[in-house]
Amino acid sequence: MYDIAIVGSGPAGVSAAITGKVRNKDILLLGDRSVSKKMRKAEKVLNYPGFPEISGAELADRFSDHLASLDIDITEDSITQIYDMGKYFALQGKSGSTYEARTVILAMGVVAAKAIEGEEENLGMGVSYCATCDAPLYRGKTAAVIAYSAKEEKEAEFLAELAEKVIYIPVYKGCSGFERENITVINEKVVSIGAKGKTVITENSEISTDGVFVLRDSVAPKNLIYGLEMDGAHIKTDRQCRTSVKGVFACGDVTGKPYQFAKAVGEGNTAVLSAVDYLDDKAVQ
Amino acid sequence: MYDIAIVGSGPAGVSAAITGKVRNKDILLLGDRSVSKKMRKAEKVLNYPGFPEISGAELADRFSDHLASLDIDITEDSITQIYDMGKYFALQGKSGSTYEARTVILAMGVVAAKAIEGEEENLGMGVSYCATCDAPLYRGKTAAVIAYSAKEEKEAEFLAELAEKVIYIPVYKGCSGFERENITVINEKVVSIGAKGKTVITENSEISTDGVFVLRDSVAPKNLIYGLEMDGAHIKTDRQCRTSVKGVFACGDVTGKPYQFAKAVGEGNTAVLSAVDYLDDKAVQ
Repeated sequence: MYDIAIVGSGPAGVSAAITGKVRNKDILLLGDRSVSKKMRKAEKVLNYPGFPEISGAELADRFSDHLASLDIDITEDSITQIYDMGKYFALQGKSGSTYEARTVILAMGVVAAKAIEGEEENLGMGVSYCATCDAPLYRGKTAAVIAYSAKEEKEAEFLAELAEKVIYIPVYKGCSGFERENITVINEKVVSIGAKGKTVITENSEISTDGVFVLRDSVAPKNLIYGLEMDGAHIKTDRQCRTSVKGVFACGDVTGKPYQFAKAVGEGNTAVLSAVDYLDDKAVQ
Repeated sequence: MYDIAIVGSGPAGVSAAITGKVRNKDILLLGDRSVSKKMRKAEKVLNYPGFPEISGAELADRFSDHLASLDIDITEDSITQIYDMGKYFALQGKSGSTYEARTVILAMGVVAAKAIEGEEENLGMGVSYCATCDAPLYRGKTAAVIAYSAKEEKEAEFLAELAEKVIYIPVYKGCSGFERENITVINEKVVSIGAKGKTVITENSEISTDGVFVLRDSVAPKNLIYGLEMDGAHIKTDRQCRTSVKGVFACGDVTGKPYQFAKAVGEGNTAVLSAVDYLDDKAVQ
């Protein structure tokens, strides 16, 4: 059981982790070992105070060194669902692992993809975000996979070990196919998902299936945890980075513009100190 | 006539100035040539992402270098009054100079109440304002806490997780004590702090310690500008760092806790980008 689980290892998550550790809390930092692939693509950063001119990759290295100096590891996993268990939260990872923490900080950045028609309505009822978690439900059945990056090919292969048939619909370019004979690749644009995930409608066809996996780098925040209030595409927070769910905080791009490293780092700091206050208040009760 | 006048050259003001300049605005940065005397007194900063362990003075030097790289000067002056002239603001300096700017960013930090005798002279040399920052220095040692409000009890509890012994001297009434056995409450009026924070002199005794934390609520900034809404001792702002006065923004410690470099830097970034938006909107009208 961790004190604080931080979902996302970009600038906001890194800042939250550093201050949480300095404040003597048990923290779990979930994300990507690289710190942030998106950050590493920034050619030149001119306005992160202290580094007059630095590449995103170099700044990510400095953040990585900072984490290492405090013995903070990044656990490589992507969270697909968070359950409020009353006294703690259970976080389900794409890897199949489940984590438990007293508080949660959401710092997963902006989720670019727009939901597919029929996706959110049928979530948990034929539509799933996690192959590792739900594959066993498809033993001897057919599963459709709508995949947003090549990384998901591995997920499809795993799924194909249990399912009788996997229909793989890549949303990205350059899928070179699979060796497994029970995976069929369909290169068509997805239009919608039918009731209970029993069909996937593309431009040219209607595909029958027993369920649909929608696999993205990250799950839209409002689908991650029940009761999370949004402000348009962003998580609604107050100035202390508290969300509408007690014990859950948010920081960085996920809370809104400006999408800037300095702003993200500042909110990471605020969010984790709010989490610390929350933990201390609970301890007193 | 400047686009943006920034009042205060600590982390929030520096961050605002850097991003304002990168955004091609004419900016005036008012403050202290040293960047911030208070910041320079921070013995050790552990949680400004990118610098694993750095002194406040060294971080101020990095900020200073960053300003220099963008040809940003600090104008050494202290603002005593700001007048809203309708289309611009007039800022009156202690030096006698008056400055004009289309927008104003307030980033002057918190002003301590009345200093205790011996407090300012020993700041950063045995006297600290920040338990989060300096607690690790007291591992296995004794720390005295002079606390101005009940909110600081949490800070003392955190400190007591690391320090061997905490001597808690409430300046407020109604401290009900602590569960932790290593916190001793002394209800006596503080007279002064001894050299290097090695003693606290009260009316009746001389208390030996390894260092002293002076923990206060911020004091309300003076009514610099008519109509500025406050939230207790702090300037009221929304998530975009806008104040109740159009064209006036605020960031850093002046907007409230946490009093942290990362938070200040993040808000400076947000405040100046809001000022840029405001200027752009006005240009369109």
